[in-house]
Amino acid sequence: MSARTGILLLVSGPSGSGKTTLCRRLADEKEAHYSISCTTRPPREGEVHGVDYHFLDRKDFQQRIDAGDFLEHAEVHQNHYGTLRSEVLDFLAKGIDVVMDIDVQGAEQVRHCSNVDIQAALVDLFVMPPSEQELKARLVGRGTDQDNIIALRMENALEEMTHWTEYTYRIVSATREEDYRKFKALLVAERLKISRLTK
Amino acid sequence: MSARTGILLLVSGPSGSGKTTLCRRLADEKEAHYSISCTTRPPREGEVHGVDYHFLDRKDFQQRIDAGDFLEHAEVHQNHYGTLRSEVLDFLAKGIDVVMDIDVQGAEQVRHCSNVDIQAALVDLFVMPPSEQELKARLVGRGTDQDNIIALRMENALEEMTHWTEYTYRIVSATREEDYRKFKALLVAERLKISRLTK
Repeated sequence: MSARTGILLLVSGPSGSGKTTLCRRLADEKEAHYSISCTTRPPREGEVHGVDYHFLDRKDFQQRIDAGDFLEHAEVHQNHYGTLRSEVLDFLAKGIDVVMDIDVQGAEQVRHCSNVDIQAALVDLFVMPPSEQELKARLVGRGTDQDNIIALRMENALEEMTHWTEYTYRIVSATREEDYRKFKALLVAERLKISRLTK
Repeated sequence: MSARTGILLLVSGPSGSGKTTLCRRLADEKEAHYSISCTTRPPREGEVHGVDYHFLDRKDFQQRIDAGDFLEHAEVHQNHYGTLRSEVLDFLAKGIDVVMDIDVQGAEQVRHCSNVDIQAALVDLFVMPPSEQELKARLVGRGTDQDNIIALRMENALEEMTHWTEYTYRIVSATREEDYRKFKALLVAERLKISRLTK
């Protein structure tokens, strides 16, 4: 096996598209490092600091912005979200693939990042729900949010959906197994790319 | 499933790399159309006209060159080989993927072809044997050729190997199943590309 640099796989899609499940499974199967985001939003029930997110207060988040620690950061639903450079670059250099569950704004920032290692590593995927109706069913089905939160999330999801053409790859969600099979194939194929070989 | 144009998958690699087995299996599993080449070399034992190759005499081959029927053609081992446009373009337009088992000269010609449909469809892969030693073992193991033919084929294989960096993807041959798993993943991933969607 020749040495190569890592792949940075950006995965976007509306809440309810199943993107987080895909990313988490890839990490569970040790195929990639799951880049843990920072956020100022409060933890939901069951969410663990350092596993689901690095939960930061606004002051702490701002200090890290000022220090240039973030690869990207954005405000969504009135909360800050961001990815630390250390969550990505250290892994890529070691040839470890990194998967990022990221919104369209964040992906746009990463795409325009001037770091050459990021640019060489970058692959982006948009995961779409099979239909608007199914998206709504999935958002309601979670049962963790109130109606007004669901409505806001649906509105945001539909806005998010308009950005799919900015991506290289797209998966239209079918079943979990089918989606994962395609997702994994994408990573297997990207690993065959000659451009990332270092010797 | 959205409509898309077909993928043209060029597969090169030295004799003994296992590329033909990969291409044939993809066609057998109805994943892609196997583009049948034309050649002026005489059929080997068991080879069937219209299945393994379209076997043409030199005059017939030359007439088709003059008529502009070939997408690419080249001379290898003192014989002519070529691909008819009709073996590729008609399929791509219908959204059928086409796999071509092609030498490095032929791949180079297809890459420089000015046809926009070809350019949009093009994906190229180089299949390498695991080592020079294993390559030789595979070439001898066939048992269909004389020593001097094997020596010529080995020499040609080593020359062919120098071109691998011209390709986008590379598979270093391991086992048949492992190689095919990667090959199939490549096609699955390419099918997820947004750039080939037509609606």
